[in-house]
This record gives sequence, C-alpha cells and structure tokens, in this order.
Amino acid sequence: MRMITSGESHGPALVTILEGLPAGLALDQGIINHELARRQRGIGAGPRMRIEQDEARILGGVMGGVTTGAPLAILIPNRDHKKWQGKAVEPLTVPRPGHADLATAIKYGYRDLRPGLERASARETAARVAAGAVCKHLLSQFGMIVGGYVTAVGEISVNVGEMPYSERIARAEANAVRCPDPVSENAIDALIRQAITGKDTLGGIIEVLALEVPAGLGSNSQWDQRLDARLGAAVLSIQSVKGIELGSAFENAHIPGTHAHDPIRLESANGELIRPTDRSGGLEGGITTGQPLIVRAALKPIATTLTPQNSVDLATGLEVPTGYERSDFCHVPRAVPVVEAMVALVLAEALLEKLGGDSMADLLLRYKTLRRARLSDLPMDGTPHVFWPAGGSQ
Amino acid sequence: MRMITSGESHGPALVTILEGLPAGLALDQGIINHELARRQRGIGAGPRMRIEQDEARILGGVMGGVTTGAPLAILIPNRDHKKWQGKAVEPLTVPRPGHADLATAIKYGYRDLRPGLERASARETAARVAAGAVCKHLLSQFGMIVGGYVTAVGEISVNVGEMPYSERIARAEANAVRCPDPVSENAIDALIRQAITGKDTLGGIIEVLALEVPAGLGSNSQWDQRLDARLGAAVLSIQSVKGIELGSAFENAHIPGTHAHDPIRLESANGELIRPTDRSGGLEGGITTGQPLIVRAALKPIATTLTPQNSVDLATGLEVPTGYERSDFCHVPRAVPVVEAMVALVLAEALLEKLGGDSMADLLLRYKTLRRARLSDLPMDGTPHVFWPAGGSQ
Amino acid sequence: MRMITSGESHGPALVTILEGLPAGLALDQGIINHELARRQRGIGAGPRMRIEQDEARILGGVMGGVTTGAPLAILIPNRDHKKWQGKAVEPLTVPRPGHADLATAIKYGYRDLRPGLERASARETAARVAAGAVCKHLLSQFGMIVGGYVTAVGEISVNVGEMPYSERIARAEANAVRCPDPVSENAIDALIRQAITGKDTLGGIIEVLALEVPAGLGSNSQWDQRLDARLGAAVLSIQSVKGIELGSAFENAHIPGTHAHDPIRLESANGELIRPTDRSGGLEGGITTGQPLIVRAALKPIATTLTPQNSVDLATGLEVPTGYERSDFCHVPRAVPVVEAMVALVLAEALLEKLGGDSMADLLLRYKTLRRARLSDLPMDGTPHVFWPAGGSQ
Amino acid sequence: MRMITSGESHGPALVTILEGLPAGLALDQGIINHELARRQRGIGAGPRMRIEQDEARILGGVMGGVTTGAPLAILIPNRDHKKWQGKAVEPLTVPRPGHADLATAIKYGYRDLRPGLERASARETAARVAAGAVCKHLLSQFGMIVGGYVTAVGEISVNVGEMPYSERIARAEANAVRCPDPVSENAIDALIRQAITGKDTLGGIIEVLALEVPAGLGSNSQWDQRLDARLGAAVLSIQSVKGIELGSAFENAHIPGTHAHDPIRLESANGELIRPTDRSGGLEGGITTGQPLIVRAALKPIATTLTPQNSVDLATGLEVPTGYERSDFCHVPRAVPVVEAMVALVLAEALLEKLGGDSMADLLLRYKTLRRARLSDLPMDGTPHVFWPAGGSQ
Repeated sequence: MRMITSGESHGPALVTILEGLPAGLALDQGIINHELARRQRGIGAGPRMRIEQDEARILGGVMGGVTTGAPLAILIPNRDHKKWQGKAVEPLTVPRPGHADLATAIKYGYRDLRPGLERASARETAARVAAGAVCKHLLSQFGMIVGGYVTAVGEISVNVGEMPYSERIARAEANAVRCPDPVSENAIDALIRQAITGKDTLGGIIEVLALEVPAGLGSNSQWDQRLDARLGAAVLSIQSVKGIELGSAFENAHIPGTHAHDPIRLESANGELIRPTDRSGGLEGGITTGQPLIVRAALKPIATTLTPQNSVDLATGLEVPTGYERSDFCHVPRAVPVVEAMVALVLAEALLEKLGGDSMADLLLRYKTLRRARLSDLPMDGTPHVFWPAGGSQ
Repeated sequence: MRMITSGESHGPALVTILEGLPAGLALDQGIINHELARRQRGIGAGPRMRIEQDEARILGGVMGGVTTGAPLAILIPNRDHKKWQGKAVEPLTVPRPGHADLATAIKYGYRDLRPGLERASARETAARVAAGAVCKHLLSQFGMIVGGYVTAVGEISVNVGEMPYSERIARAEANAVRCPDPVSENAIDALIRQAITGKDTLGGIIEVLALEVPAGLGSNSQWDQRLDARLGAAVLSIQSVKGIELGSAFENAHIPGTHAHDPIRLESANGELIRPTDRSGGLEGGITTGQPLIVRAALKPIATTLTPQNSVDLATGLEVPTGYERSDFCHVPRAVPVVEAMVALVLAEALLEKLGGDSMADLLLRYKTLRRARLSDLPMDGTPHVFWPAGGSQ
Repeated sequence: MRMITSGESHGPALVTILEGLPAGLALDQGIINHELARRQRGIGAGPRMRIEQDEARILGGVMGGVTTGAPLAILIPNRDHKKWQGKAVEPLTVPRPGHADLATAIKYGYRDLRPGLERASARETAARVAAGAVCKHLLSQFGMIVGGYVTAVGEISVNVGEMPYSERIARAEANAVRCPDPVSENAIDALIRQAITGKDTLGGIIEVLALEVPAGLGSNSQWDQRLDARLGAAVLSIQSVKGIELGSAFENAHIPGTHAHDPIRLESANGELIRPTDRSGGLEGGITTGQPLIVRAALKPIATTLTPQNSVDLATGLEVPTGYERSDFCHVPRAVPVVEAMVALVLAEALLEKLGGDSMADLLLRYKTLRRARLSDLPMDGTPHVFWPAGGSQ
Repeated sequence: MRMITSGESHGPALVTILEGLPAGLALDQGIINHELARRQRGIGAGPRMRIEQDEARILGGVMGGVTTGAPLAILIPNRDHKKWQGKAVEPLTVPRPGHADLATAIKYGYRDLRPGLERASARETAARVAAGAVCKHLLSQFGMIVGGYVTAVGEISVNVGEMPYSERIARAEANAVRCPDPVSENAIDALIRQAITGKDTLGGIIEVLALEVPAGLGSNSQWDQRLDARLGAAVLSIQSVKGIELGSAFENAHIPGTHAHDPIRLESANGELIRPTDRSGGLEGGITTGQPLIVRAALKPIATTLTPQNSVDLATGLEVPTGYERSDFCHVPRAVPVVEAMVALVLAEALLEKLGGDSMADLLLRYKTLRRARLSDLPMDGTPHVFWPAGGSQ
C-alpha cells in the first residue's frame, strides 16, 4: 500500500490517494465521514474545529459502492477556504517555537512563514484519518479492531488498571476527553478548561490497541520491514508525536529479563499457545504474536499558545513575542483517531503482504488458513539438522 | 541511500550493501573495523563477543582508497561459522518468550526454531554498524558528529545534568559501560555483575546525539519524509529497541505548551537565531533546527536468560522451561554504536537529499552555501500576499 | 519525485499527486491546461475528445502562484461524469481483445467488465499529462525542452531526414497529425480518414526528444537507477505503448560496433567534447551524455474497433463479436504529449537528484556549476593507480 | 522483492542481495552455477570469459539447503582479481564512444576513467544471472519456464516461423550461438568469426519467453505497477540493451486494429478462453493474459572494438583513437541468460505479490486456487449497475 496526501490548512482541499486495496470491499463515504467526525470531537478544541465539519468525497477507486482495486482518492474540502480566496493576508514573520515555521523557512527559503505552516499544520491529519478509516474498515472484515484512548493529559496520568481492552475503547469513545477511566476523565476535563483559561496548551499520551490481530504479520527479515519500525515511522510522522513505545518499552528497560517478557503457556483444551501478559506490545522480532498490539504515543503540547512565547521578528530583526494563530488548546483527545489511522494503515499493509491476492473473496479465504499460535499449526520435526554443509558448498 | 543486510548469526558471513554514497570519499576498512570493535566492547557481554573480533572486507564501491559512487558492499565473516559447518545441530523446539522464535515459526512454517533465531539475532547489527561507520565518516567530512551513551541500565538512571554534549560522548567512550557519569558508571558496573551472577539480563536507555547538524534537513512535505518518522523507523528496527523519543518527548507530554518548546533568541553579534534549550530534540516539523539531534531509545533486556522462563515444547506439547542459547547479560553498552549507526544512516541520507550531487567536491562546495538559522539568510518580504486567487483559478 | 494518479474514465474526476518539486517555481493552471489541450487535439480522435475540454485545478502545493515544496495535487473533473451519475449501466460481459477487460476480470474477480476498463482506459493519461506539464515547466527553467512528434501511423513512416530537432518539434505542433514532414502529414491525414471510414483503428510510432539536457543525469550505479531503465518503465507504462527504443536501438542491433556508436570530437575553440552523431539516444551507461535524448515509442492500434472482433460472452458462454465502446480511431497524434509527459517526469526526477536542494534559487545556482562535457571540467591526473591494495586490506 | 548488486569488474567479488523469497524453497549453489556457466558459453566471447569460470557462494538466506525467508546473499569472486591486487594500473584517459567512460567521468568527477568502466562493465550481469537463477528456480516450482534465444546477430535475422516455443528454447540451448534455427545458426557463427577477424563487434536481438504464466499477474492500477513498465525497466537496465518490445510491438504499430490483437475463443470442451495468436506478448493492460510472455530486446554491439574509434585524450586534449580494453566480440549469445534473469526477476516478484504468503507450502496451495481464463472462474452477474450514485454521495 502507498498512502500520500496533499493540501494545505487553508487551501481548497485535502486529498489522499491510498493505493493497494483489494477489489470487492464495500465502501461509502459514510465510513470515512464517521472517522472524520471522531477527529473533530473533544473539548479543548479551538474554534477551528467547529468550522471544519469535514465531509469526504471519493473520487476514484470505488464503483457501485465497492472498491475496484484501483487507487482510492479522497477529497476533503476545506470549508473555510472561501474566506482566504482573493484575500491579501498579512505576512507572518515571527516564527513560533515548536512549530515548523523557522525550519521550513530555512529549508525552502520562504519570504513569509505562512507556506511552511500551511503544510505543516495538523489539519493534514484529516486526510490521514480518511485513509485510516478505510484501513480500519478493511481490517474489520477480518475481525480486527483498532481503537484508542487517552492515558495522560498534562500532569494527569490515567490508571486503566486491569480494565479489559475492548471496554477501554468503548468507554473512551463515550466521553469528550476520550478517557477510559471516569475519575481521570473529570480531572482531565478540568485541567483542559484550566489551560483554556490560562491561555496555555496541553500534550499527553495516547494508547492505541489493535485487537484480534493474527500472528505472523510483519517481518524480521530486513530492518525496514520490521513492524516496530513501520509503526514507529507511521506514528512519529504525526505532527505533534515525538515519542512512541510498543508495549511498556520504557518501563521494560528497567526490569530484569526474567520479568520483562511474556511467558508462553498452553491452553490444553484447544492446543493454543497463549500469553498471560503482553509486555511485548504484541510484537516479537518485528512480527505480530497474535496478542493485542499496543502502541503508545507521546504528544507535545501544541506550539501555538495564546500566551506569547519568546521569538524574533525576521523582518525587523527584533526579539518579540509570538502572535497567535488559531489553534486547539488540547488536541490530545482529537488526536486519538489520528494515531488509530496510522496504526491501521501499517497493519492493513502488513495484512495484505501476508495474504496477497486482489479481491476480498480471495483474501477472506486465505485468511482462514493462516497458521496460528497453536500446536497443530506448528509441527516440529525433532531431528538434528546440518544447516551449513561442510566445505561451504552451499 | 539504501542499506540492506543479509546473513545469519552462525552462517558464513554478514553482508551489507550501502547504496548512494558520493564518489571521492576516502574510505578504508580501518574506519569500519574501528566501529565494529566499539560494538564488541563492554562488560555484560557474553562469551560470544570474544569470538567475534569482527573484521570487515570491502568488496565493492571503493577503488584506490576512495569511494567511486558505486554501491558499497561490506563482508563480515562469522568467525565461529567453521564450528557449525557440517555439524548436525539439535533442533530447538522451545520458543523463548521475547525472542522471535515463535513468531517466525508461525510466519514461515518452520519445523525447527533455529532458522528464525539465526536471522532475528542481534548479530545482524554488526552489518549495520559497518554501514553506519561509513555514514558517520561521511557526516564527519561536514563537521557532523554522531555519538551516544547509556543513560539507564535496569533500575539505575544516569544523571547527566548540564554536562556538555561532547563531554558526554567522550566520557562514555572511556569506560566499559559507556556511561558519561562516573558515579552511575560504577553502579551500573555493579548491577551488571549482579545480573551475571543472578543469571538474569538487563535492558536500559541509550541516548544518541548528532552535533553540528545543519538546519533544514528532512521534510514536512509528506508524512514518510519527516525525519522523526525516519529516525523512528531506523531506531525501532534495532532488535531490542521497543521505544524511542526525540528530545524529552515523554516528559514534554506532561508540560504546558508555554514551557515545552524552545524559545527563539537572537545572537545580536552575528545575527544568528539561537535556542537556549533543546526540548524538541533538534527537530521541528520533521526538519532539523540546527540544534543537536537527541534520540533516546528504550532497550528491553535480552530475552535469552540463563534462568529459564516458562514456555512450551512444540515437539512434545508439554509446558517446559526454556533452554539457553549463548547470549549477552547486558547488551546496552554494546548497543550504543548500533543506535549511532542507524541515526547516522538516516542523517546521511537526509544530507545527501539536501545536497544532491555525485562527488565529495560538489557536496562540500554546496554545503557552504546552505541557508542557516541566521537573519541574513532569511529575508522576509513583509508585504501581504494573496495566497489563493479569487475564483479558484489557480 | 513520486507521481501517482487516481480516477476512472467516467468517474467524478482524475487526481494526480506529484511530490518532490522544489519551492519557488511559478506555476498556474494555465501551464497545465495548455498541455491538456494539446492532448485533446488531433484528427482521428473519437467523439469523446470533444466532451473532455479538460480543465485542471490545483488543490495543493501552490500558494501565491508559486510552488511551496509541498506535494502538488491536481484535479481534472470528468465533464461527462454527470451523465453516469445515478444511471444504471448495462453490464459489459464481452471482453475486447487487446484491452484489459479479460485480464482485469481474472485478476480482480469482477462480475461486470466495466470496473476494469474504467481504470485501464487511456483517459487516465490526462492526469499524467497534467503532472508532465509541471515537469516540462520545471525543466524549461533550466533551458531544457521536451517535445515530440509522430514518425509513423499505420503503414506510413515519416522521413525526417536531417531536419533540425527543434524544427521537427515546431512543425509537428503546427498540424493535426503532429507530423514534422508535410508530405507524410497529408498521407497520414488521409490514412486516418480512411480508417474512420473503414471502422478500424491505427497505431504508430512517436519520437520524443529532450534538448539541452546536461550530461551526468542518471546513474550506472544500480540497475534500477539507469535512466534507460527508468525511461523504459515510464514510457512502457503508457496504455498502448508496447515497445520503446533509445536512439536507433533496433537499427543499431544490426550494425557493426565500429559504426554503431558516437565518436568523440573536440571543439577546439572552447574545449567542448562533442558528438557529431547521436546513435546512443543521448545515454551511455544509463547516464545522459549531454546530447539530445531520443525516445521512440511503438503504439499498438486502439483495441476498441467499430468493426467487431471475435470474443466470448462471459455471461452466456457463447462466441460473439465485440460490441463498441466509444473510442478514438487513431490516438497516435494525441499520445505525443503523453509520451512527452512521462519522459519529462523521469528527466525532472533525475535533474532533482543531481541538484538536490529545496528551492528554485538553490537549484539554478547549482545548475550553473555542473560539470559539462568539456576538457576544463575533466582534469585527468595521468598517473598509475593501485586500485586494490595487495593483501585485500581495503 | 528487491535485488541489488555491488562489485566491480576486476574487484574482489560481485555480490547480490535478493530479498523477499518465501521460506522452504530448496536451493543450492549448483542451481546458480548452472546459470552462471550458461552466461559464459558462446562463441564470440573474448579471452575474459575463459578466466571467469564463475562459482557462486551463498552467504545468507539458506539453511539446511532451503531458503528461510531471510535475504539471500550471493558472492561471486572475480577470479582475475589477484592480478590487480597491489598493481599500479596505467590511467585510462581516452573515453570509448558507446561506453560509460565519459558520462561517468562527468557525473562523478573522476580523474581516471577506470572507476567508471569498472562498475559500468557487463561483468556485473553475473550477479544478476545469479539472482535470476533463483527466480527461475522459484518460478519452476509453479511450472513456469523462462527461456530465450537469439533472433538476430548483426545483419542476420533468424526465422523461427511456427516453431513451438519450447522447441525454440531447447534448440537454442544446444548450440554455441543460441540460435533456434540451424540455417541461421551457421550464418551467425560465420558472421561472428568474420567480426573477430575484422576486429569489430556485433549486436543483435534476443527473444525471451515465459511459458505457463498464469493470468492476472501485474496490475493496471498504477502506472509503475504495470508489468510492461516493470519488464521495460528490468530489461533496459541491462548494459547493452537499448530497445525492448513486448510481443510484436514495432510491427503491430503498422497494422490496423482489427488485425493487431488476439481474438478470444472458447475451448468448448473445458470452458477455457484461449487465444490462437499472441500479438500482445502475453500482456493486456499491464497484466498477464495467461499466454506466453514474449520479450524482445535490442542489444547494441559492444563499444570496445579492436579497431580504434575516434575519441579525445582528456589528459592531453588531443584527438586520438581509442585503445583496447579486453572484451567480447559478440556478446549476444551470452546475454540470453541475462535477459532471462531480468524477466524472471520481474515475474517472480509479480507472482509473490499475487500469492502473498511466506512459505512455499502456502504459496503452492494458493496457486492452485487462482482464477484462470475459463468461464467457470468468471461468473458475470448480468444485471445493470449504478456505478456512481446520483448526487455524488459516494
């Protein structure tokens, strides 16, 4: 699969092309709009959010309500574009710390910082969520579920304890801060309101799960094919994400080896190999283990703060405070569907590599025959092997 | 650039092909062997390390001691391969939790777990370090330095305080646990010895810096071109790395926006735009800012522990403890050059994208003219722009 | 650069995303529409052509009339889409020989052949011509010209003799069959009219030139980087192109080596190394020589003929003649801009690899300093070299 | 799949890494050496050929005689390397017309032309033939056969008439000029001997077939996925190939549409859709039709001729004749396995895309269930479809 996007924050539209889908997947824009709406919900969002009311239009790759195997193109018009048409916009010459303003100006030689921020803006994530919606929908045909929730906002960390995975997803979906725990939910809500009043912004941690993932997706064969690497790239490509861990990686770094891994047990009844824990985050050797995939992303607070920060006016050469561009106060709840989208993209691609084929009918059939983590699928021959012949004559 | 590796842990050799180097870079195997030796030093290494004594041989891409622009091939013979030649090896049928044993068996349908572990083994990182040595050497021609150190092993975290970056690198290089702080150094040393006695293994945190990096490398243009994403993929592709952050990402997630970014100041004397802090880890919008690049990797403890873990014998269907395959007790100090190698690879690629060109002479000339973070390189035009014409007639 | 397209022949629109352009290139939709109009001109075109009147809209990557370095998105609405909206279309179950109908049905498991033909249709080339227009425009900033003409239609072959390259392009542009030679022009015109009357279709040969190409673009380093390979892929990806040669390749295959190459001579006045002939088509070792690039493409006649061909109705299992889908009688003149577009895409990509950099200002500066085919740029050191040291110690 | 090579003509060795093979393919170096030997046979070869006697060594990706799914690395030592070790070699400063000498010097800024020719030399094709041998071997597990023969050398064109495809391959293999027709065989043999005496070189045409190819490989979805494009890139990447056609493309360009395609007929007995002709070369819409794939490559005569050609000494600035580097007189017979290798590589990749999966057992099972060109595999639903709903609400 290839997914690429185009479009600026206030330009006419965002466009995504998603390539590599099998034919025969029922798909309409409602499936995409549902995820776009999820991306727009949440307290802490700025006034921009209400403007958006995104609505996707499928321009290619679907005929008669099903995918054809051709590349999918999705158009999301920018609703406030009209206001920018024909309008002379004051130049932006004071780069905001933490945003791409200064780096893009150096890279591209801009004489106004706006072109940099227009493309760097997280508005672009709407295009990704659209593509991710299709990937989630594809995965769901195989029973796979991708869902996420907030585990920290600012100084507040959420305790999910032993709450079952699917309950976490369901609970988070039911509140405006996407928090699975009711106690933390209220605290986060209050903290965000306080940040709004205080003219500040807040970052946090998002956890995304993929459930019912079959074992054997991804590869240990080449470094760039490991699923850890590909998830890392996908999630760290999100505008405010600066850290990622698979499972409890940063915690595991401090735990002895005998306690940091997931013992293998046998479910005698059906010969399934199970793991009572999931410290690996569902990945061993860059390959799915069949356990839930657990991806945790660290989001920095949005760089655009109502309270000015120190900067320099490049036009005058004077040290001045930053001005304000419209933005969210806390984007963390709204970013959950974005992280989900990027995880779903990687997972869909890995699934299609495993299954090959060109139509949903082919894929569903092949899916049933995949080897699983169970004894009967893994016959061992039990005899010694000469792996490298004497004399190097291989 | 493309870098791919081949080879198994006990096969005849490891091979790397590194493509995309400019012509005219002086290069000999000593440069590579130096880094390979760095990868083999460190207490906590298992008996394997002493066997290795890796020595690289350049098979292509260098003539008369300089690169030609052709793909570089590096061969690293496995010194203990001879012992495996013609020898019948007992089958491995008890998958080790945390290793790729079970996942690769499911993926590939192996009837003996050895083929999986042979390729999944971190022995492969020698091939990466070889390629990384060349990338570091290339970067050094432009004054760029890539170096790293250990900031945690097991429960011990290192306090580097305000120690200058280059001092951290120098100090770490001088001791067997690659720790920049003498106090922590001794504690880590003791902890590793305790793990050896206790037949356990230890993970930790590695910090890798890139110094003297010019601003403007990487891109915010497409998600998969952001340097955060590419560093994420490169570092998370390392066998035991399961988490990564750029700068203080996980800490920043808990800090308000007004305190989480790097204010921009003016060095009046020379018109340089400077940043007293480096919370961004040297990257804004997926592009280098000109500040030090800071990459932090979380390494799980090695899965192969002398103390057995719970598993299942796939040949007999019985729950049994794992056996032991030769391995390190604490690989964290030895993994520093591996993380450095992957960071150097990404950075070298980004540099070559920026500079284009085919020979060192071309590149060095172009390098001098790169726009920098200084006022004189960033003339702003200061007038309002109509970015999108009325009527959508763009 | 990456260029991908989406969209069906009668769907809402075609979309192209073109990635990798430098910032600072002045660009408006007029430049694109000009090429789209060129693609629609020419006798032998079917009724479809008049419907199209394509008009591009830039959705991303351009602000204030110049590129920003962000991915360019171009939308080309399908003007006759409205007629297809909400309309139940009779199923197509008789595959046309020579079209993708049968192959796509087998590949994707379609139950109606229309989804296959919708994407396989040469309508998609409008999206490529749009991207190619931008690439040609980029190349023109460096003085490079890409232009083409028809050298054969059906049984008529054009004799261009010694006509200067730029005159060929100019003359071809001035007539409806894009033929540089007035005699052949009339004959081709007559032949096409005869094919229309005879309800048949005609293929032919197109020659595309790139003039003022600097030496040293492309690479001999890896097989897939050779410009011959990349031009081959680009041109053979065009819907009806089934053959390609660089220079006089098929003729050269029959000529002795002493006569098949381009002698190197010295223009004493300025020290330039020149080639009185261009049998190589401007490429030696996969790299441009600085002479005109000559690409010749063989186009099969369009598969959709008013005179039915033998086929089988997949719904009834009976051998039946094919029906008719609206199409051109001779697409060769109209295909000239398509071949130009694909050549321009490859050349633009090779140029950007050579120059690197992110803005037009950078690129233009670097362009001036490229090594050329002249003595003063190629100092030879004239002493013997030891390329591989004794003992293999490299 | 990825295939990359490294190594110079007289350096220590050639190396290929071939990535993406499934696990479980029985493979030993004999299979590779067989193809390497085929590449070394044939009259018209220069003295170099006898030196070579290539022998491959597998360094990675195979354990116990079967592939593991890990990347394959193949080493082919250069037997005459020893003579070059430690030896000071006279500089080459007179570029040979038709070779990469001048173009690489301009590209890379070399001060001696040897580095350019060392990598540009067709010696590198040994590495491709090694990888191709593995691909052919993989394809053969599915009953697919890739074979080729010479259809022209210099002015002599071979008439294969109606000779069955497999007979062509078998006959060509039995003689030193790889010609399927005994009459032409003798004429070609004489012509080559005449070229040797006349100190000249000869090019020619090679035809490579792939038999028993299933329908539905490749894609019409995106331009760069069409099999025509991918075959074009692969074959035009071969050092002396400058033209390619799929089927009778250049001839088809002159034939009316009603005669240029392959009618579809029904084999009533078994419901198979057959094609009495194969003008398409086995590809419609960039996808295999199930008929034989026919690839024809035009090879220029080798640029290095014993009879000198006009050139310029870059060291002295004088017009001088070229000197002689050891080379073949007619490489066409020897190049047959090279073209086969590149066709096999593309085909193997397309097959693996279709089948997905990670082990031979999986792939063979899936292969049996592929849709074929037969009525029962292609049920049409026969009812009208609304492909695009009214109101654009897709």
